[in-house]
Amino acid sequence: MTQPRVTTAIATSDETSITVRGRDLVHELIGKFSFTELLYFHITGREASAAETRLLDACLVTLMEHGWTPSALIARLAHDSNPSQTQIGMAAGLLAIGDVFAGTMEGCGRLLAEGLSAPDTDTWCSEVVQRHRSARKAMPGFGHPFHKPDDPRPPRLFQIAAELGRAEAEIALLKRLSAALDEAAGRHITINATGAMAAVLHGIGVPPALMRGVSVVSRAGGLLGHIAEEEETHAAREVWRLAEEHIPYRGDAT
Amino acid sequence: MTQPRVTTAIATSDETSITVRGRDLVHELIGKFSFTELLYFHITGREASAAETRLLDACLVTLMEHGWTPSALIARLAHDSNPSQTQIGMAAGLLAIGDVFAGTMEGCGRLLAEGLSAPDTDTWCSEVVQRHRSARKAMPGFGHPFHKPDDPRPPRLFQIAAELGRAEAEIALLKRLSAALDEAAGRHITINATGAMAAVLHGIGVPPALMRGVSVVSRAGGLLGHIAEEEETHAAREVWRLAEEHIPYRGDAT
Amino acid sequence: MTQPRVTTAIATSDETSITVRGRDLVHELIGKFSFTELLYFHITGREASAAETRLLDACLVTLMEHGWTPSALIARLAHDSNPSQTQIGMAAGLLAIGDVFAGTMEGCGRLLAEGLSAPDTDTWCSEVVQRHRSARKAMPGFGHPFHKPDDPRPPRLFQIAAELGRAEAEIALLKRLSAALDEAAGRHITINATGAMAAVLHGIGVPPALMRGVSVVSRAGGLLGHIAEEEETHAAREVWRLAEEHIPYRGDAT
Amino acid sequence: MTQPRVTTAIATSDETSITVRGRDLVHELIGKFSFTELLYFHITGREASAAETRLLDACLVTLMEHGWTPSALIARLAHDSNPSQTQIGMAAGLLAIGDVFAGTMEGCGRLLAEGLSAPDTDTWCSEVVQRHRSARKAMPGFGHPFHKPDDPRPPRLFQIAAELGRAEAEIALLKRLSAALDEAAGRHITINATGAMAAVLHGIGVPPALMRGVSVVSRAGGLLGHIAEEEETHAAREVWRLAEEHIPYRGDAT
Repeated sequence: MTQPRVTTAIATSDETSITVRGRDLVHELIGKFSFTELLYFHITGREASAAETRLLDACLVTLMEHGWTPSALIARLAHDSNPSQTQIGMAAGLLAIGDVFAGTMEGCGRLLAEGLSAPDTDTWCSEVVQRHRSARKAMPGFGHPFHKPDDPRPPRLFQIAAELGRAEAEIALLKRLSAALDEAAGRHITINATGAMAAVLHGIGVPPALMRGVSVVSRAGGLLGHIAEEEETHAAREVWRLAEEHIPYRGDAT
Repeated sequence: MTQPRVTTAIATSDETSITVRGRDLVHELIGKFSFTELLYFHITGREASAAETRLLDACLVTLMEHGWTPSALIARLAHDSNPSQTQIGMAAGLLAIGDVFAGTMEGCGRLLAEGLSAPDTDTWCSEVVQRHRSARKAMPGFGHPFHKPDDPRPPRLFQIAAELGRAEAEIALLKRLSAALDEAAGRHITINATGAMAAVLHGIGVPPALMRGVSVVSRAGGLLGHIAEEEETHAAREVWRLAEEHIPYRGDAT
Repeated sequence: MTQPRVTTAIATSDETSITVRGRDLVHELIGKFSFTELLYFHITGREASAAETRLLDACLVTLMEHGWTPSALIARLAHDSNPSQTQIGMAAGLLAIGDVFAGTMEGCGRLLAEGLSAPDTDTWCSEVVQRHRSARKAMPGFGHPFHKPDDPRPPRLFQIAAELGRAEAEIALLKRLSAALDEAAGRHITINATGAMAAVLHGIGVPPALMRGVSVVSRAGGLLGHIAEEEETHAAREVWRLAEEHIPYRGDAT
Repeated sequence: MTQPRVTTAIATSDETSITVRGRDLVHELIGKFSFTELLYFHITGREASAAETRLLDACLVTLMEHGWTPSALIARLAHDSNPSQTQIGMAAGLLAIGDVFAGTMEGCGRLLAEGLSAPDTDTWCSEVVQRHRSARKAMPGFGHPFHKPDDPRPPRLFQIAAELGRAEAEIALLKRLSAALDEAAGRHITINATGAMAAVLHGIGVPPALMRGVSVVSRAGGLLGHIAEEEETHAAREVWRLAEEHIPYRGDAT
């Protein structure tokens, strides 16, 4: 065979073994790594320290579940239409993790990465706030439709990070950005869970481009809980009925 | 409000708190539960014992990654088409976890549940094997296209379960079913990873209807690893080029 | 290059031309084929007659839209979460076309193909009805949750087919099957739109394996209409609010 | 019931009828509207003229098929993993229609809408070109990786539009934008199919926000052709084999 143009460092297998990132799956990973440890190893190429595992677990737990969200509603409706194909409900629900809900840590992570290398933090904070305000764009990682005045999740993530001595620079920066935003807005806008997760994930070496994917993994767990309940309650049928009853046809074509 | 037709036990929230399955997310779950522990609690409604957590982790690790699979190829191709929307690549890849690959533990789990309550195990094993053979259907949990004579993952899962004293009845039944299948087929057909996972998951109380979903959660982690690498190597473009080069147009319409 | 293992008859292109199924896209297809004509040509490899085009159009129109369906609810919720990525809402909604809703013409088409070659139609009808009743399975193509006593779409499709002299054997068979089902059930169960479409599509040479895909194409058009309206009304937010209000948390973990 | 917060003008139904955008589906649409005519009516709320139908058909035909594309590869791989669930392969493939491939008419349509109301077209063209060049962003609707020097599809779409006397202002603007781009780049960059479609669709009253959705509908038809062939050739297995053979594991973890 000629020289390959592209290679992979992910995994390989033969008739009797499977190798993942250089480790023998059967003898070195199964039973020795937790899911969270293998996830960290798989996406960063490095073994997680105990602190890194604990913080990644905290982030995964933070975003797994938030009750009735678009992703949960979609997962239930799609599962009810395909009850023998669980992957459909889960994948359909995960598609809702995007720029609007639960997918905003990536943008916040990129901001933090930029700010950490800025020569003057205060100037940088002011400029970032002005840039978003003049474009009338929400700052990723800030604001929440329901949790006011403050999303309760960030303080807990910050506390765990502080106990473990990780992500200190990122969290300090996020708080300075928050202060600059509040001052410019003339009111308090909460740091939300995705903002806090962006700081923590950056602090343990997860690159911004993969942060939304961490949400997707986390929410996959949450959606399986919804599907478990859907098998019992068939809430999707009630969602459908509610739409039929409360969003009526208004009888014209335009 | 009138009496609701359907309720949920999943989660609720107010301005300053989030409750998941009766627990305060911030004070009782974040930092205290691992992802795997919360997943177990979320889908079964019960807190996992240490043994249950270890076995669920072992299952999640087992199926996270197997190199070039349809799900990995799809995730990379879809991500390359939507590099700013990580959820698309991941959801598209997860859709490939179905009746053919990685989604067969559900069928095996249903078989095991049936067999555990059968009055005569040997008779039941023979009947199940005959039922599948006469319908020319593969028995879920058995056979593997590459791993021969044996998939290396089941023995490791069985070993961990034995150490923890869990899933003994299920594993014993799976092995008797395997013996009956080999005898009827006149050759050895391996117990595969999804068969072993079905036994272990049943042994820790995960219902068959949710077993495929456990694969989906696991593989979500694996696909994030592929996306991490795809950002560097752009293997999707090479997959596309290979198809163009090696699967040529043959020049007629039928 | 060595002999290819697999080839394609779908399409090819070079720097200045595109060929689809042996035709020059620019000079032979664009502006000369309607979408429906090219769809027929593309999936069957044969040019549609005027009657075939008219019947395929009738089928595509029949299933495009049915108001609040799971697919429409999903498409709106997913679009609201990803307003700049229209393909997400559409793809998520299309995932709901499955064994339960709008995807059942495939099963009905397979039945019809089987029945058309049965030596004795009446015996075959009885056997098919008994087979489904003893397995407690709905017969694909029959029954509708809302349209009673009869789905209004099949008679119209049958009328158009009769005018064009197509699908006569399939429609006659479907009606005999319907009579056998009613007799066995002791009540009238409507032929539904997917049953009628299965007969018509079979009559114009669309194989059963592709019939569900025709629904998917059709419904893709319907979902774009929902997305058009969603951009104005944001009904997805109301669906979410309704779920929050009417499907309350019941306060325990199990 | 209290006053509804949101209503819909899409569709309604009762036991014996279905109404779509104010028309009786059975008596006014099935057999009278082509798929393309109903699509136009459904997304714009207006009946299409013959010219509008012909142009929408031309756009739908233009983008239906382009051989091996990411969407086709994904559809085949996902279908091979779920052969009984056609909607999965199609939906997975459609997810690849995004900012990179086949989804760029939306951005071009927004540009054209902006330019049509600009006071001085030449100044506006120069500014748009500069804006994209200084941000190092490709101009939506321009450039193609394979078709050089020119994508063959736009001239054909322009010709049909000219024959029908539609989209003249949009096409003229697109050509002036093209000239400005070529001048600034110092080389010729083709108007691509999505650019031409944006001009034509805008000319027949399809809003930019729905243009990508038109691609999705069109490509849904193309993907069904790939699935039809996949059922015969199993090219997905060859794609998988090619990846295994040509993108090898390189044996380290980073």
